[in-house]
Amino acid sequence: MSIKSLAVTALVLAISLSTYAADAPITGFTAANAAKEQALESQFDSKVSVQDLRTWLERLAARPHQLGSAYDHDNAEFIASLFRSWGYDTTIERYDVLFPTPKTRLLELISPERYTAKLVEPALPQDRTSGQTAEQLPVYNAYSIDGDVTADLVYANYGVPADYDVLARNGIDVRGKIVITRYGGSWRGIKPKVAAEHGAIGCIIYSDPRDDGYFQGDVYPKGAYRSEYGAQRGSVEDMPVYPGDPLTPGVAATPDAKRLDVKNCPVITKIPVLPISYADALPLMRSMAGPVAPPDWRGALPITYHLGPGASRVHLNLAFNWNIVPAYDVIARMRGSERPDEWIMRGNHYDAWVNGAADPISGQVSMLEEAKALGELAKQGWRPKRTIIYAAWDGEEPGLLGSTEWVEGHAAELAQHLAVYINSDSNSRGFLNADGSHSLERFVTEVARDVQDPERNVSVLERLKARQVVLASNAEDRKRARDRELMRLDALGSGSDYTAYIDHVGIASLNLGYGGEGGGGSYHSIYDSIDYFERFVDPDFVYGVVLTKTGGRMVLRLANADVLPLQAGTFAHTVSRYASEVMKLADDTRAKIEEQNREVQTHEMELAADPKKPFVAPPIQPVAPYVNFAPLQNAVAHLKSVAGVLDRASAAATDSANAPRQVALDGALMHLEQALLGPGLPNRPWFRHQIYAPGFYTGYGVKTLPGIREAIEQKEWAQANEQIAVTAKVLENYADEVEKAAK
Amino acid sequence: MSIKSLAVTALVLAISLSTYAADAPITGFTAANAAKEQALESQFDSKVSVQDLRTWLERLAARPHQLGSAYDHDNAEFIASLFRSWGYDTTIERYDVLFPTPKTRLLELISPERYTAKLVEPALPQDRTSGQTAEQLPVYNAYSIDGDVTADLVYANYGVPADYDVLARNGIDVRGKIVITRYGGSWRGIKPKVAAEHGAIGCIIYSDPRDDGYFQGDVYPKGAYRSEYGAQRGSVEDMPVYPGDPLTPGVAATPDAKRLDVKNCPVITKIPVLPISYADALPLMRSMAGPVAPPDWRGALPITYHLGPGASRVHLNLAFNWNIVPAYDVIARMRGSERPDEWIMRGNHYDAWVNGAADPISGQVSMLEEAKALGELAKQGWRPKRTIIYAAWDGEEPGLLGSTEWVEGHAAELAQHLAVYINSDSNSRGFLNADGSHSLERFVTEVARDVQDPERNVSVLERLKARQVVLASNAEDRKRARDRELMRLDALGSGSDYTAYIDHVGIASLNLGYGGEGGGGSYHSIYDSIDYFERFVDPDFVYGVVLTKTGGRMVLRLANADVLPLQAGTFAHTVSRYASEVMKLADDTRAKIEEQNREVQTHEMELAADPKKPFVAPPIQPVAPYVNFAPLQNAVAHLKSVAGVLDRASAAATDSANAPRQVALDGALMHLEQALLGPGLPNRPWFRHQIYAPGFYTGYGVKTLPGIREAIEQKEWAQANEQIAVTAKVLENYADEVEKAAK
Repeated sequence: MSIKSLAVTALVLAISLSTYAADAPITGFTAANAAKEQALESQFDSKVSVQDLRTWLERLAARPHQLGSAYDHDNAEFIASLFRSWGYDTTIERYDVLFPTPKTRLLELISPERYTAKLVEPALPQDRTSGQTAEQLPVYNAYSIDGDVTADLVYANYGVPADYDVLARNGIDVRGKIVITRYGGSWRGIKPKVAAEHGAIGCIIYSDPRDDGYFQGDVYPKGAYRSEYGAQRGSVEDMPVYPGDPLTPGVAATPDAKRLDVKNCPVITKIPVLPISYADALPLMRSMAGPVAPPDWRGALPITYHLGPGASRVHLNLAFNWNIVPAYDVIARMRGSERPDEWIMRGNHYDAWVNGAADPISGQVSMLEEAKALGELAKQGWRPKRTIIYAAWDGEEPGLLGSTEWVEGHAAELAQHLAVYINSDSNSRGFLNADGSHSLERFVTEVARDVQDPERNVSVLERLKARQVVLASNAEDRKRARDRELMRLDALGSGSDYTAYIDHVGIASLNLGYGGEGGGGSYHSIYDSIDYFERFVDPDFVYGVVLTKTGGRMVLRLANADVLPLQAGTFAHTVSRYASEVMKLADDTRAKIEEQNREVQTHEMELAADPKKPFVAPPIQPVAPYVNFAPLQNAVAHLKSVAGVLDRASAAATDSANAPRQVALDGALMHLEQALLGPGLPNRPWFRHQIYAPGFYTGYGVKTLPGIREAIEQKEWAQANEQIAVTAKVLENYADEVEKAAK
Repeated sequence: MSIKSLAVTALVLAISLSTYAADAPITGFTAANAAKEQALESQFDSKVSVQDLRTWLERLAARPHQLGSAYDHDNAEFIASLFRSWGYDTTIERYDVLFPTPKTRLLELISPERYTAKLVEPALPQDRTSGQTAEQLPVYNAYSIDGDVTADLVYANYGVPADYDVLARNGIDVRGKIVITRYGGSWRGIKPKVAAEHGAIGCIIYSDPRDDGYFQGDVYPKGAYRSEYGAQRGSVEDMPVYPGDPLTPGVAATPDAKRLDVKNCPVITKIPVLPISYADALPLMRSMAGPVAPPDWRGALPITYHLGPGASRVHLNLAFNWNIVPAYDVIARMRGSERPDEWIMRGNHYDAWVNGAADPISGQVSMLEEAKALGELAKQGWRPKRTIIYAAWDGEEPGLLGSTEWVEGHAAELAQHLAVYINSDSNSRGFLNADGSHSLERFVTEVARDVQDPERNVSVLERLKARQVVLASNAEDRKRARDRELMRLDALGSGSDYTAYIDHVGIASLNLGYGGEGGGGSYHSIYDSIDYFERFVDPDFVYGVVLTKTGGRMVLRLANADVLPLQAGTFAHTVSRYASEVMKLADDTRAKIEEQNREVQTHEMELAADPKKPFVAPPIQPVAPYVNFAPLQNAVAHLKSVAGVLDRASAAATDSANAPRQVALDGALMHLEQALLGPGLPNRPWFRHQIYAPGFYTGYGVKTLPGIREAIEQKEWAQANEQIAVTAKVLENYADEVEKAAK
């Protein structure tokens, strides 16, 4: 704790004591077992050692350890040895996956002046691992196709579909051009995908200092933000189509798996793509001609941002080694004593782009500490009611390879046995960030109520609520933030290893982490290092400890509960909100089309435009038809009418011990999420969950009711009607399962 | 017209013909006289010569011509000679006014590194007048006090009161410090005033490239935006207290006027202040320490913006020649034939900071062309019904000196005779910008309906409506923009020569100009030049011509109308909206105080803050009492109930010729605005209008119902109650006058 905050501690403690009660009820437990659970959790807390976190982080991040590297394998063995030492039944499962690494990287400005991009992050004396160049992967985007192209440059902002509408309004066509886009606004893989859809022949992605550099704060090593030659590595596999090994969609990448040819692989980019630093972007962008970019497209380079095309002409030449490499997943089990066939799973990847002290080792070491403490409890005689499985995933960075292959290989048993998957990844200072299945909102709220914030000595729930109140943009939101009993979980998109669990197999899932106060710009660079982490991210590892306590409590409660604490009511409530959103989206989209057509037809748009600037009116769009939301509305109404019955049945089953009834409820609850699986989303059948998916054009960002929402966004009205029917059907299934279970 | 727009001309013409009708009614005219007026206006248009505009602009802007300079006097004589040549009864009226010019300007960074600010705008080969250094005033702020100070620097964003609240929340006190602020967010004179109120000992104002430089577009001479050493001169006289000669408030600065001592003059700054370029600001700001500035405080310099105080320590030394100089107002009269004691006045200043091709010569030459065309009509036998007076003002730039002294010297006769004052100033390409008394909304709308946009061949009204539709942020605003018959005039704040007319004497006033498409950054610099204007502002002088046609029509209609086209209904409607606004402001202010107190008392604000950053909770504020709006509500209700009666009486008086009734109505209408004068606003009695005033803390930006609104903003609740009573009284007066006139 900083000196400054000491002065207010006494006051804050006074508040916290009034809301925190050690004997608070825990959903899913009888009163007697809840008290035992609280005592067990105190024991758990007492076993957590901040020194372990520091020691393991310094061990695991000591050398670059990307997928396929020597130190990555070494880390797998080290992690497996830890689990074994704590008494877990531990295996390493291997998959053979496609992982390209750079052979040629050349980017040159060839006119109006010449400049060759440096493409190198310099070693720094203040960063002990930054000079490990022999083992570092250079800056590149994994699963860029090979290519050698020369063309004029067009600036396409974040490179999302709407940006190309703006270019068109300015009379700019990217066909045959190389687009330069900035990081942000979407997951990076969207940028080359959309550029290629519009006919570009190459794509550059740079880190603009406005989003990721000096505009945000002092740059490394003075401060935490990205310095001029810092650049962001990262995957551009088309993961919204399917993640995991690009050559083995839907099946595990075992030695004998049938593999696609790289040439025909649908998730490799269609055009070459390279990430660069802002120092390398500056010479390319300062010579650009064409219209001045719209205000919200302008970053913090000290130039006037132009759209092009030209006058900058660039040559981009990329070639890769298309190797198959081993991915090693470490799987550690602790068998349940009473309900061993009900599984609770916890995972965090351990591979990194370079040293990865924050991403992912900060999360990995918190998870390991959790496993250690549970192991010690077990050695003292405690056993979980259900089976606990820990996973340390390999190959997350290139495309969630380790977790996806493992889930694909174990899909049938997971569908049968796995109740909940809890993921974590990078961890930082700040506020609890918990996203996931809405059936877990009460569960997460209770854990957040019982974990203390290490800097403010109130519960992490209370700090989170305070932030929601203070950041609320209007009185209504503020009131809701104050009055709401339960945390609202954001839905899961993609970007970490929960993806295959929730989206492909339909396992209720959570993603956990702390953040919001450890801002910086070391993401996917050589500066995501031990020195950086211990200066800027979580210097005292106190948020590492709090993540251990959060994840540990979750695992303990899920493993020990008398009835699994999944609730249909919170899901029904939230899905009803999503239904309202998509209905409003359809109305808004219709109104927007009508209004835009009107402004074009009346010439209002033209009259409002500057006659001395290029103006291309948008084309007249077909009027949007009304779609039939009735099936969705009926399904939601049905679900809302029955959800409460099941939650009351669960509550009744924990009012007193009634083991057979509890087991029966578990059997229903653990499979409930799977009722939400459908035949697969349009054009991407790997994604089977009808309520949650990463956006086809956002990448990490979630689309809820994705079939319906994306059909409306893309103005595919027939598909919208179809997807309403499909989605209504899974919600009816869910409601039926709820009804059956409640009986 | 550009080539590009030719393609759409045919279509657009088809639209315009349907809405533009030469025989459209004109308020204030009988049907027969309206037809004659339209014919006269066509004749007027035929006399407008684009070549005159170019010739005069190149003559008047050929050399620097600030107040007191040789060329400024030369221009006065030239303008007077033009008026005389057109047949006007022309005089030059002289006032002797305080006008400081720089003797010493020194700004040095003394630690952590040394840098001496250049404070010079370089001459450019592409700009023929930029090298006239012998006659140029250097970059400075007029009416800065002398001072020699050394202190650490604090960055205060735009330097408005709310910015100091943010500094306080970051634990930063500016007492004894020098603040650096950026241009924008308020009129410049607010910045040193507020800095001094908070205890700063010096103030620097720089042009941030985000607001005024490369972020906006290519810089001069490549493009139109401010280049690295470009800087903005300007007055920092505390004009919201009173404008005009600082030494003779309220009276004309005649030779025998009683003058204040410079030492006791309340409108000279309390601390020294200097404007600088962004090239000079960069070395000062890049060394600053302290917290990182909030995101919306950060500009486009390629640095991390810090708040300070320090590590930059600066030395600022300023001294001025406190001279009394002559200001020459050119006054030209054309006597009315039927109602010579009813005056219509038109004005534009002619003094500049340097060459001032745009500011103010672009507006001056359009006004001169108007006067020329009227003179030619007069030579053909036409005479205005009412007297027309043209004024070319001197000394506007330092503080509206010429117009204010003239109005103060002629206040009594203006109150008796002057019906309407129409001002213009700089002119550019784009959309009609007309602000002013709400009683003139129908009048302005009809003129805008009858003037064609030179680039799009629709009326300027239609283009303006198209822009309002396209820029509307929601469907409701869009519908209102489409459906509204009349233009909504924005209220007048300050910043040009209408100020004394409306605010001090209560003359119904307008301010006219075109703009929005001639963006750039030459304002108050040596680059506001002929070469710049003819490349970037209005290269073909087509918007100069359209301003001539707009202003000319207004003067002709006001001079010729059977009944003055002032309407009480539009005023009543708008003042009712202002009353709703201030009532909502009081409620919102109360709610905001309550909410902030609550967040402090519950510690929500503290819990939401990053413990590793400085946090100072705002002090608990007294709960806002409810104030008595009833007098205002009653006055507005009274006014609304009678306003329509007067407008119907005016309409009836032009249904058929009834000269005595028309003259009687004129007599009431021309004095109606004066009913809105009160005893003067709190702490600034020179400002007597109770409905319109420049904001005490905005400078140019208007505050409507200023006594009430500013009392609420400053949480002076007793004063709010008093000002409600005062404002209600003037509105009751106005309503009484309306009732009397309607009888």
